[in-house]
Amino acid sequence: MTWTLTEEDVRSIAVGAGLLGTGGGGDPYIGQLQLIGLLRAGKTVTIISPDELDDDAEGCAVCGMGAPTIGLEKLPAGDEMWKAVQALQQAVGSEFSFLVVGEIGGGNALEPLIAAAHSGLPVVDADPMGRAFPELQMDTFLIGGVNPSPFAIADGLGNSAVFRVKDALTGEKIGRAATVAMGGGSSLAMPYLRGRQVKAHGIHGSLTLSRRIGDAVRAAIRDKRDAAKAVASIVEAREIFAGKITDLELRTEGGFNRGQAKLEGLGEFAGRELRIDIQNEYLVAWLDGEAIVTVPDLICLMNAESGLAVGTESLRYGLRVQVLAMPASEKLRTAHALTVVGPRAFGYEMDYRPLSVV
Amino acid sequence: MTWTLTEEDVRSIAVGAGLLGTGGGGDPYIGQLQLIGLLRAGKTVTIISPDELDDDAEGCAVCGMGAPTIGLEKLPAGDEMWKAVQALQQAVGSEFSFLVVGEIGGGNALEPLIAAAHSGLPVVDADPMGRAFPELQMDTFLIGGVNPSPFAIADGLGNSAVFRVKDALTGEKIGRAATVAMGGGSSLAMPYLRGRQVKAHGIHGSLTLSRRIGDAVRAAIRDKRDAAKAVASIVEAREIFAGKITDLELRTEGGFNRGQAKLEGLGEFAGRELRIDIQNEYLVAWLDGEAIVTVPDLICLMNAESGLAVGTESLRYGLRVQVLAMPASEKLRTAHALTVVGPRAFGYEMDYRPLSVV
Repeated sequence: MTWTLTEEDVRSIAVGAGLLGTGGGGDPYIGQLQLIGLLRAGKTVTIISPDELDDDAEGCAVCGMGAPTIGLEKLPAGDEMWKAVQALQQAVGSEFSFLVVGEIGGGNALEPLIAAAHSGLPVVDADPMGRAFPELQMDTFLIGGVNPSPFAIADGLGNSAVFRVKDALTGEKIGRAATVAMGGGSSLAMPYLRGRQVKAHGIHGSLTLSRRIGDAVRAAIRDKRDAAKAVASIVEAREIFAGKITDLELRTEGGFNRGQAKLEGLGEFAGRELRIDIQNEYLVAWLDGEAIVTVPDLICLMNAESGLAVGTESLRYGLRVQVLAMPASEKLRTAHALTVVGPRAFGYEMDYRPLSVV
Repeated sequence: MTWTLTEEDVRSIAVGAGLLGTGGGGDPYIGQLQLIGLLRAGKTVTIISPDELDDDAEGCAVCGMGAPTIGLEKLPAGDEMWKAVQALQQAVGSEFSFLVVGEIGGGNALEPLIAAAHSGLPVVDADPMGRAFPELQMDTFLIGGVNPSPFAIADGLGNSAVFRVKDALTGEKIGRAATVAMGGGSSLAMPYLRGRQVKAHGIHGSLTLSRRIGDAVRAAIRDKRDAAKAVASIVEAREIFAGKITDLELRTEGGFNRGQAKLEGLGEFAGRELRIDIQNEYLVAWLDGEAIVTVPDLICLMNAESGLAVGTESLRYGLRVQVLAMPASEKLRTAHALTVVGPRAFGYEMDYRPLSVV
């Protein structure tokens, strides 16, 4: 199915992707403003489904790289995403015919749409995470065997870099260092893809899912209904906690936001404590000391007053939130994928504990 | 004049460049072994003078990037320099017909010769420093207006990066960060040059000068004569101190070796103290508190026993040295060049004080 992006779509995708970001992907607000500005200026963004791609079509995934808190201070120029894609095009010596969402979480869901508005290329309704992840190699395209090399980054000041690396972990290390030197945030074009690889390894329907979630949340907010329940009515999701943030430790370190948040229960969760570990995204949720949600499953914080998602960059003492958990895509839960995106990949000495959504 | 590199040339260039490195450029020993190995395996290296270049000929300068101490632990694979040149060739879409020495100091003098052995390209007898400098922008090609962008780096593990930057300082920052992520050292192809730019902005005759200095030092060592006097007999140079290292503070920080060495005078310098400030290279020499040699003039340490140059990476407590000073190339002493390579460019609140060689 091919569709043309409207302003309302942008608003809903921003809301839905904020939630799917599981804390990361950056605040979608600035991207939303940019994208709506581009649509009002007459730009068109076309979304196509993976099935519509020719097997040999060439394109790439696009998203931002860096710590979410940086995005609040280092405003985008607007065209850096397209600049990164152009650098990658030049490196592989071809012209791309599509873009893919590099990460459906947070503001990163909007980045490829902005690049599409600048370039006229269609965006494929798929991504390689179904959420946000902090590191490059945490990507179903790469887990499926797509070559991470070459890849490109660009900033909003006219600087870009193309990397050829022996593996994704090396790319993560060198690209992250260059991103930090660019001021903590960059636009990333990676990996270079053929149509058949998007079909085989992508998580299909990410954009439409984020739009559906956003539609449901926005309708609930409008009608003063419970936004968390509205989400749970359309996707597998479970409210695991409600409370306020009583302790927050967050530092920007090596290009990441790392730390933890502690929440004191309210209502039916009174007297209980939830701790959430953070590396850009919410990784593990501990209820009274027990790990009840583990990465790659999604931990989503919603502002109890506004119903909107709370990203890592917006955490603050005293904030009241509802916490939703959602199971990750099956592509992230294979034994092989869990070696890349499971708790041990983040330094935990425990295995992934599948979330039961009842 | 065109000449073909011999094993003896390699040994003399290594000795002479060690001295011209003014502490930096890395230990030439490993490069010397590699290069002699390549010559013995039948590879040929041709040196041409700048005048022999066509104005429109295309090529680039090559050298290493990183802290000199790293070079002692992170041994080169051998072909990373040529890999960096190939990455730059691909980025500009042409095949090069020459290489230039990126930095005549230390092991960096040998790097382009190794790349030449691998590629068959001739090396132009010129460099943009006449010494070693710690940062990318400290280069007579760039000071003369040559575009620093694009440039390429490579490591010995199959990783490379091509950067397009708005200015050399940004290139220094981003390229340095990527180099640190590559383990602290990389090979650098920069800048992309036309023949006319080498003629106009290069410091001509660097390789032959390092060979002449090396020949003189090696002859003095063989004949048990004073090596410092032998150098002073063929180039403008003055012995400013002789003594032993009594205090050494050296740290690897942000991809550089930084610190200072203190020397206690011996012989005619008994009772006096020399302090040398370091950022990869020896920057300023203070005799009893007075700055007597300032960057870009050269401060060269020679081992009092062996007569060989002492690089930053070989400084140690108790080492006895002679200290020679030499005036920098005139191209580094213009008012414009001094804004890039003078004391203030290194954070000193003082002007360059021209060395008097009497």
